Amino acid sequence: MWREIPGGVTAPQGYRAGAVRAGLKPSGALDLTLIYSETPAVAAGAFTTSQMRAACVTYCQEQLRTGQPVRAIVCNAGQANAATGPQGWQDVCTTAAAFAEALGIAANQVLVASTGVIGCLIPMDKLLGAIPALLAVTTREGGDLAAQGILTTDLVPKTIALESIGLDPPLRVGGMAKGSGMIHPHMATLLAFITCDAPVAAPLWRRLVQEAVAVSFNQITVDGDTSTNDMCLALANGAAGGPPIQPEDPAAATLGAMLKEACIQLAKKVARDGEGATCLIEVRVRGTETDAAARTIARTVSGSLLVKSAVFGRDPNWGRIAAAAGRAGVPFNPEELAIDLGPIPLMRGGQPLPFDREAAKAYLHSDPVVIHIQVGPGPGVGCAWGCDLSYDYVRINAEYTT
Amino acid sequence: MWREIPGGVTAPQGYRAGAVRAGLKPSGALDLTLIYSETPAVAAGAFTTSQMRAACVTYCQEQLRTGQPVRAIVCNAGQANAATGPQGWQDVCTTAAAFAEALGIAANQVLVASTGVIGCLIPMDKLLGAIPALLAVTTREGGDLAAQGILTTDLVPKTIALESIGLDPPLRVGGMAKGSGMIHPHMATLLAFITCDAPVAAPLWRRLVQEAVAVSFNQITVDGDTSTNDMCLALANGAAGGPPIQPEDPAAATLGAMLKEACIQLAKKVARDGEGATCLIEVRVRGTETDAAARTIARTVSGSLLVKSAVFGRDPNWGRIAAAAGRAGVPFNPEELAIDLGPIPLMRGGQPLPFDREAAKAYLHSDPVVIHIQVGPGPGVGCAWGCDLSYDYVRINAEYTT
Repeated sequence: MWREIPGGVTAPQGYRAGAVRAGLKPSGALDLTLIYSETPAVAAGAFTTSQMRAACVTYCQEQLRTGQPVRAIVCNAGQANAATGPQGWQDVCTTAAAFAEALGIAANQVLVASTGVIGCLIPMDKLLGAIPALLAVTTREGGDLAAQGILTTDLVPKTIALESIGLDPPLRVGGMAKGSGMIHPHMATLLAFITCDAPVAAPLWRRLVQEAVAVSFNQITVDGDTSTNDMCLALANGAAGGPPIQPEDPAAATLGAMLKEACIQLAKKVARDGEGATCLIEVRVRGTETDAAARTIARTVSGSLLVKSAVFGRDPNWGRIAAAAGRAGVPFNPEELAIDLGPIPLMRGGQPLPFDREAAKAYLHSDPVVIHIQVGPGPGVGCAWGCDLSYDYVRINAEYTT
Repeated sequence: MWREIPGGVTAPQGYRAGAVRAGLKPSGALDLTLIYSETPAVAAGAFTTSQMRAACVTYCQEQLRTGQPVRAIVCNAGQANAATGPQGWQDVCTTAAAFAEALGIAANQVLVASTGVIGCLIPMDKLLGAIPALLAVTTREGGDLAAQGILTTDLVPKTIALESIGLDPPLRVGGMAKGSGMIHPHMATLLAFITCDAPVAAPLWRRLVQEAVAVSFNQITVDGDTSTNDMCLALANGAAGGPPIQPEDPAAATLGAMLKEACIQLAKKVARDGEGATCLIEVRVRGTETDAAARTIARTVSGSLLVKSAVFGRDPNWGRIAAAAGRAGVPFNPEELAIDLGPIPLMRGGQPLPFDREAAKAYLHSDPVVIHIQVGPGPGVGCAWGCDLSYDYVRINAEYTT
């Protein structure tokens, strides 16, 4: 059991955060962000699977591999620092070292993330020059400010914070994310930063984070493009107090559930804020052999341009849903396929049902639009989220300049 | 060596074709098409990989499995006859039997294809009632008429015909295709019908068709949606005369090359006519270990919504090209990546080059837009085709009614 609380990444005990205008973005918006843990935290992460990884992705992967505790996450917006060669790598190292010195911690306790235009070097003089101002606004109340600093084409900041009910001491999970274009399973241009004050050893923390990412950030899609910079970083600093949580403790189950809930809520906010989106699409699949198979079908349907276009057009086109389910690469018997659009049954036993077209069109003005798919009698369930495809998606992406 | 000739599917010897308005489409356009071989032809095919296959797909697959010669291909437009259950299957059988009787051939010599709205049964009375009129317009000059009968949202008919130079007797390959939305590798909503008058045994013909489909229809993408109805059917009736072509004959190599050329030309016409497209995008990849790996990268780049949006916006965004290449699932060293936009080098050794932005924007007004990608020193080469993503894609697919 848990309840939602305010505060984002600074809702858990022992974290500070903030953001400043370093002048990295031409727009002059907030563009340099810091999350700081007052004590060393165990860290876990998930990263883009692209061959073209930004320097900061490789850097964070190497840092996490050492198992070192982490104290800080720095994120710049404006330049992706991808396809930037040795200079890009050097800039990541310089950033980590400069923040370490300013914070009085070791350089290997600083993780670095970037988002923005691919192939652009970070104006390092501006970044380094903004560190004092950033430290000055990095506070225990800075979660909402920090959530603004990581945005690019996002319309709204995305934060979440949950507090356990019934555990003593209570545990808290906080988080913030950015997304918008290029959102796709397996860490598209998605940045997500999770904080937690539970006392938890690294192996358990890594497993819980991995499980939460699998059912949340890896289940959202805006346009099928996986980016060079995606990452989810998650810190747990133990500041809630109490003995270390063991894998078999009830608190571990609660923590895992809270982490999933926080990640799913952030993932849905990212999908809802997809470029040009007018609604969130939630696809719930059941009846497969495994959960993974259900998740695959759900992702394929939520990512289908034809389904997304139909939702934007408020056209109850179950044929496109069936066609997308069929090409997901998961074998099923078409004669067992059932599809519902919200409360409205559209297909049973692989056959279209007569349905009230006006009611279905009216339902498509809901937000979220929920599509239910059953493909057989199996125990597998899975969920995925996307958004509709609008004229504005094309406008935004045709006009966004390199 | 070969030259292009007029006539489409009736350019090869011994074929007749035609199309009529059977009233299957609300628009009243041509919607029922016949290709007829005056003598039995060996047949080969490629089909959608979707789990949700239309009745006609399963039917044709079963017919081809028997190795029986084929005399006729019937295609209706308006109803996909997919997700139509036992009645849909019955309708395919009825269609084949009715055409067989009218043509005086065996029912298992008739193949059936459909395109249109998923979940709709074919109005069989209209289809059957139109057979006499269709036979009356099925002639040796009917290739262009037939190419119109298979269209749905396509803007232009797509035909090709090639005649060999230097072989005695000369061989001819003809073809027609439809595409538009839902075009994607592995037989999206794509119908392609190939005719040929070469004397060739079934095993060689099947291999040549398979090789041609792999580098043509399976290398085009409009929106990533694979449909329920895609198929390529290819007939060879031997009407050109001469002895059977053996696999080791020079004529077999010429025939294979002609078949590839015909299929690639049709595939490019389909991609160029993608819904809302303003230009053809050709992606040429080299430097992989295998041709298949190069084709995979080429498909991923040509299918990237961000690349497609950038081309529509005439934005020389090499970063999106690099990011798409990186997520194709083919390992390569990012420091060896080279990208050219037509004649303009954009990236070498994984690093962006300075380039004349105005010249690059001007080049993006070309049709086709050609993107060259080299990922390493390997011998693999591959090509894929797509189109840009425009406002009209969204409009067409938001408004196309079930």
